[in-house]
Amino acid sequence: MSQPLRLGIAGLGTVGVGVVKIIQQQADLLTMRTGRTVTITAISARSRNKDRGVDLSAYGWEDDPVALAKRDDVDVYVELMGGSNGPAKASITAALDAGKDVVTANKALLALHGQMLAEKAEAAGRVIRYEAAVAGGIPVIKALAEGLAGNRITRVMGVMNGTCNYILTRMEATGQGYEALFDEANKLGYLEADPNLDVGGIDAGHKLSLLSSLAFGTQVDFDGVELEGIQRIALQDIRHAADMGYRIKLLGVAQMTGRGLEQRMSPCLVPADSPLGQLEGGTNMVVIEGDSVGQIVLRGAGAGEGPTASAVLGDICDIARGYRYPVFGQPAGTLTAAPRAQSALPAPYYLRMSLRDKPGALAKIASILGEAGVSIHRMRQYDHVDDIAPVLLVTHKTTKADLDAALAAIEKTDVVTEAPVALRIETV
Amino acid sequence: MSQPLRLGIAGLGTVGVGVVKIIQQQADLLTMRTGRTVTITAISARSRNKDRGVDLSAYGWEDDPVALAKRDDVDVYVELMGGSNGPAKASITAALDAGKDVVTANKALLALHGQMLAEKAEAAGRVIRYEAAVAGGIPVIKALAEGLAGNRITRVMGVMNGTCNYILTRMEATGQGYEALFDEANKLGYLEADPNLDVGGIDAGHKLSLLSSLAFGTQVDFDGVELEGIQRIALQDIRHAADMGYRIKLLGVAQMTGRGLEQRMSPCLVPADSPLGQLEGGTNMVVIEGDSVGQIVLRGAGAGEGPTASAVLGDICDIARGYRYPVFGQPAGTLTAAPRAQSALPAPYYLRMSLRDKPGALAKIASILGEAGVSIHRMRQYDHVDDIAPVLLVTHKTTKADLDAALAAIEKTDVVTEAPVALRIETV
Repeated sequence: MSQPLRLGIAGLGTVGVGVVKIIQQQADLLTMRTGRTVTITAISARSRNKDRGVDLSAYGWEDDPVALAKRDDVDVYVELMGGSNGPAKASITAALDAGKDVVTANKALLALHGQMLAEKAEAAGRVIRYEAAVAGGIPVIKALAEGLAGNRITRVMGVMNGTCNYILTRMEATGQGYEALFDEANKLGYLEADPNLDVGGIDAGHKLSLLSSLAFGTQVDFDGVELEGIQRIALQDIRHAADMGYRIKLLGVAQMTGRGLEQRMSPCLVPADSPLGQLEGGTNMVVIEGDSVGQIVLRGAGAGEGPTASAVLGDICDIARGYRYPVFGQPAGTLTAAPRAQSALPAPYYLRMSLRDKPGALAKIASILGEAGVSIHRMRQYDHVDDIAPVLLVTHKTTKADLDAALAAIEKTDVVTEAPVALRIETV
Repeated sequence: MSQPLRLGIAGLGTVGVGVVKIIQQQADLLTMRTGRTVTITAISARSRNKDRGVDLSAYGWEDDPVALAKRDDVDVYVELMGGSNGPAKASITAALDAGKDVVTANKALLALHGQMLAEKAEAAGRVIRYEAAVAGGIPVIKALAEGLAGNRITRVMGVMNGTCNYILTRMEATGQGYEALFDEANKLGYLEADPNLDVGGIDAGHKLSLLSSLAFGTQVDFDGVELEGIQRIALQDIRHAADMGYRIKLLGVAQMTGRGLEQRMSPCLVPADSPLGQLEGGTNMVVIEGDSVGQIVLRGAGAGEGPTASAVLGDICDIARGYRYPVFGQPAGTLTAAPRAQSALPAPYYLRMSLRDKPGALAKIASILGEAGVSIHRMRQYDHVDDIAPVLLVTHKTTKADLDAALAAIEKTDVVTEAPVALRIETV
């Protein structure tokens, strides 16, 4: 048998504790499957004495994750603290400099500093693995970077933020509004410390940017993700979508087009009976399309102790078995800086506007849309309440550019009280 | 850059041609992703001069696959001929003996000789990879053996024979009977040379036995798969299932129980709106359940040139990158010979019987079922045609053992004209 694989684990939140538990409980299985003993050398976390329900007495302790990352008796530094800067970045950098492999669940860090870290890992001859960073327990990085390596990937899509999906599905199920369910999710501990990471689509955008890089051989470009959160989704939108046979999902889409890389993460209407439409609560789904394989769909728990720890262990087992390849599937220097492209593919859109009770208000909206080349498929106006009438409409297929021009013009008029809500209808 | 990876490809059917095309068309991509050039040294197939739409002039030729497998200038022997014995077995054995790695799509061979081949590969220090053997383009072997390596797998399920699924979904869609659609599938070239491999559930059973071994660390035990084909499914069954909100799928289930390993491949009723129930045509789906990850669902094309070649290329890329692990995920000597177990978990069953027009016939059936402890949830008897009346019924939850006893007793009476059709109802 080979030498044991010695881990230094930084961060003992839900995921960190899950990883320790698996290593303790499945020790024999891991040895059988990797041919090596997987051991924990030492741990670093905020508080040493907190009871986390696992026995840590056999492991060393470091208050400073950077010190842990550098230890001579650590082969793999497992970063589970999170955060796009600070200790996570410092310690991963230190680990690579000290010649350690890295396993992390940190999507924010990789989305913002992926290129730098990939270059650093390559220079050091080390790997960074991050299955747990995207879609929890679903082995999607593995599918994309390894299983489908013979494909030119054409599109990646996914519902990858369980909290948003929880709020949206609960709105439909309970008839409660966004605010009430935001509070419920918060009480259940489903929201990040900065909730905007979840409901603003940022967390899901981070994940999408990593998948893009793997899929298209491009440098991670999180800033290039067209981001829209779920904060403006009203119960009315959900009900109206349901009436039409749709459900609203925070959907990410990345595809390489002739004009450049399109990346968007935004609430969309998807058919209620489609695999994406049927997703409940915290379940994630990723759809990968390749030129040879066609369409592959992967579904599973997107978060939680067990699923995320499972992903971390998958990476650890690969490293134990000696599997090594570049961070984004090809050498960092070959990743291209793709131009950013907005979707040019026309799609129908769902629009909601709040119209003032003025003569000719609706005509004005209709005429602006018509002038921009956006034609209306169906429209419904409701009664005025406090001088405001909700207008819901569905357009025929239109480009985002035409629609944006129309919406900007509508917003400048005095007939709406706020910017229209516009949701793309995806018939995936 | 490292040395090129030199392939010897045996078999130029759909999959073989697909593999050659990808290697020709995606050469740059493969080099970028693996750090090596992937080249074809030589090819072996039945007919050298047949036009297959690909230029083979740059490659060597061997009439005998065994000679190809042994060539000094071949690093990886890619077996795409199929067949559980004969040239496939002889050439793979020769390749391992000659120190070559092996990539194959041959489920039959591995299902019948997996343990021997795993031991041989291990002794030779070589790998056998077979992603293409199960569920076409879906990277399910990779998910099970690598991504979920930190899990104790509790259950694997799947719809893994596209031909059966094609026939069953077309029966529902067109209202044509089994025989007509069998002929249609045959004309379309969807059936194996021996159609019983498909419609008898054997092909799907081969696949299930491989997943079992990977999931539970057991020696491949294809003979332990309780097999039932779709040949006796009548249009009436499909319609009656649809009335109740179900669809009939050839479903494989493998799980480790306290009594041993349960493996079954049989037509089952699954909820029409479930992911399994929604599968159309040749699409495959595999469901994996692990103690940490929970449930993972993978869906994609189960056959065809592109998807299967994609899986073969995934294996080739892994080998090019230097990834090596035992054939069934752990050393061959540690794979256990699990006792075989029949499902003890009670389930409701759908039954169809052909009753003779005799007084008391139905009473006799009901009383036999009752005596065996099988209680009836609902029953419907149709008009007699030619003195035979179809009786359709759904039982309450019952064990397979109790049901089998009742069915055996019913078959012995003179009130039915043939053995009853019994389909388990799975509420997955």
